Amino acid sequence: MRKRLIGVMGPGATATAEDLTRAFELGRLIAQHGWILLTGGRNEGIMEAASRGAKSCQGLTVGILPGDEQNDTSSAVDIAILSGMGSARNNINVLSSDVIIACGMGLGTASEVALALKAKKSVILLTDNEYSKVFFKGLGKEFLYLVDNPFEAANFCQKILAAKHN
Amino acid sequence: MRKRLIGVMGPGATATAEDLTRAFELGRLIAQHGWILLTGGRNEGIMEAASRGAKSCQGLTVGILPGDEQNDTSSAVDIAILSGMGSARNNINVLSSDVIIACGMGLGTASEVALALKAKKSVILLTDNEYSKVFFKGLGKEFLYLVDNPFEAANFCQKILAAKHN
Amino acid sequence: MRKRLIGVMGPGATATAEDLTRAFELGRLIAQHGWILLTGGRNEGIMEAASRGAKSCQGLTVGILPGDEQNDTSSAVDIAILSGMGSARNNINVLSSDVIIACGMGLGTASEVALALKAKKSVILLTDNEYSKVFFKGLGKEFLYLVDNPFEAANFCQKILAAKHN
Amino acid sequence: MRKRLIGVMGPGATATAEDLTRAFELGRLIAQHGWILLTGGRNEGIMEAASRGAKSCQGLTVGILPGDEQNDTSSAVDIAILSGMGSARNNINVLSSDVIIACGMGLGTASEVALALKAKKSVILLTDNEYSKVFFKGLGKEFLYLVDNPFEAANFCQKILAAKHN
Repeated sequence: MRKRLIGVMGPGATATAEDLTRAFELGRLIAQHGWILLTGGRNEGIMEAASRGAKSCQGLTVGILPGDEQNDTSSAVDIAILSGMGSARNNINVLSSDVIIACGMGLGTASEVALALKAKKSVILLTDNEYSKVFFKGLGKEFLYLVDNPFEAANFCQKILAAKHN
Repeated sequence: MRKRLIGVMGPGATATAEDLTRAFELGRLIAQHGWILLTGGRNEGIMEAASRGAKSCQGLTVGILPGDEQNDTSSAVDIAILSGMGSARNNINVLSSDVIIACGMGLGTASEVALALKAKKSVILLTDNEYSKVFFKGLGKEFLYLVDNPFEAANFCQKILAAKHN
Repeated sequence: MRKRLIGVMGPGATATAEDLTRAFELGRLIAQHGWILLTGGRNEGIMEAASRGAKSCQGLTVGILPGDEQNDTSSAVDIAILSGMGSARNNINVLSSDVIIACGMGLGTASEVALALKAKKSVILLTDNEYSKVFFKGLGKEFLYLVDNPFEAANFCQKILAAKHN
Repeated sequence: MRKRLIGVMGPGATATAEDLTRAFELGRLIAQHGWILLTGGRNEGIMEAASRGAKSCQGLTVGILPGDEQNDTSSAVDIAILSGMGSARNNINVLSSDVIIACGMGLGTASEVALALKAKKSVILLTDNEYSKVFFKGLGKEFLYLVDNPFEAANFCQKILAAKHN
């Protein structure tokens, strides 16, 4: 049976300390639930922190990289998909994830939230950026969930997955 | 000498009447300045209106379509690029444009504004969606311009192009 | 009415002198027929030669580049589409072309011929690589045309376009 | 430590019985060596047979699908990456694989062999299509290996991986 992929999306170098702590915890929770973590795969920011969290609980981690070489792949990524297509890979991230959790907010993250909502994917927002909540609620509230901490995010994941049919 | 491409991005079926009027006017102004119009190429919304505006002034129009067939290409598009890659083509739209004008706001448009600012492209926002202005100003104000009408947008284009070196 | 795009695909730096002469002539003929030339857009090999040929007859030239910057765009390309997705852009080249002419043969060209035949696009082979003719005839002879010179290629283009319905 | 991905590429519906037997055996061998199998992910042909072979030995299987929905994903694929970009995903298949094994030959397979050799990836050809051997040997012999059976292919994989530095 196909494994469930939970995408954790967030800033690279500009992630805040709070975002990084949350991302590590999200990775842990995703692994503990037996889901697979999917990130953008690079060796910094949310991608790195979430992947490390998942590995700390023996989870499996997938990274979909923008480049075509391994030089900036996080060492906590088990399966590295080299897209070679830059930020256009953001669309693959969201299409491949059963649920998307945005942890923190940046330009790449914003593009992923928008692309995910457009593809009618469930998106969980875990961020201190209040503008992003109002903005995305206005554009796609049907598939958007606002949460305050990683535990709440994992709970929503579980509910969303339980309601999915394929 | 390579021709200048001005990308006009905006909603499809959900565009407002005001957005459509502005898009048509943007197309006219782009053609009058001798620039080439680039849109998402489909036969509705901002893509269609801007392309019709440009053709009404004998401009040249390029459309970068999400699909791999011509069935939903706007009849006002001269050069149809069939990407066959869905919304991932939004990144090609922004990389290929010398300047991006967001006319109206929707989920696809939001992804394009985010991807453009991430790629350090100049983005001109022409929309009544006030949340989008605050949100994107917070993420990438260095390359973001807010305008109230198509004429102001064309003026900014001219200034931005004059300052470009390649 | 949508303009017709003729894709000319062939090697970059490894193109032979004979291939380059043919590519220039193909560009001339495409322009003379009023079609638009589509190439991979870079400033060498078949892409450069075909684009120069088309410009020598006031044709319009489109280039779909692998990179995300203008630094290796041919100066004979009017409209540069920056895909930012490397060789994956080869699929966009073939999807966007009404007819594909392979001028010469290399690894990139081989991928384009294969992708084009898979997408049921008409492909005209103009090459001295005899192995490629036998190989591709074996895989997709229904859409493959073998020619000996640019004039024959242009004649086949005309027939193929006349039979197309959209 | 990043896991090794071995890509097995080959025809879908047009695969021969011999090709399918070989693909199943390749999947088994890849799993037995502790490598991860990467395929195009669909529920037919070489993709399906290789994935089933790997699962019969408790291997891990990754599929990179052309579409954006799960409807044609092989049930033997553990991790389904939905590219939503059609045949352009062939380039992701080859960039992401440490070694590519072409099992059988078709137009999609031909594009993958060409793209892989262009990216300087090691390619192992296991096919009865003699033309393909001569053709690709002529274009990229430095990275091409011809084998007669799955065991020989696995042996070459082992040697190639041992010589890789990242």
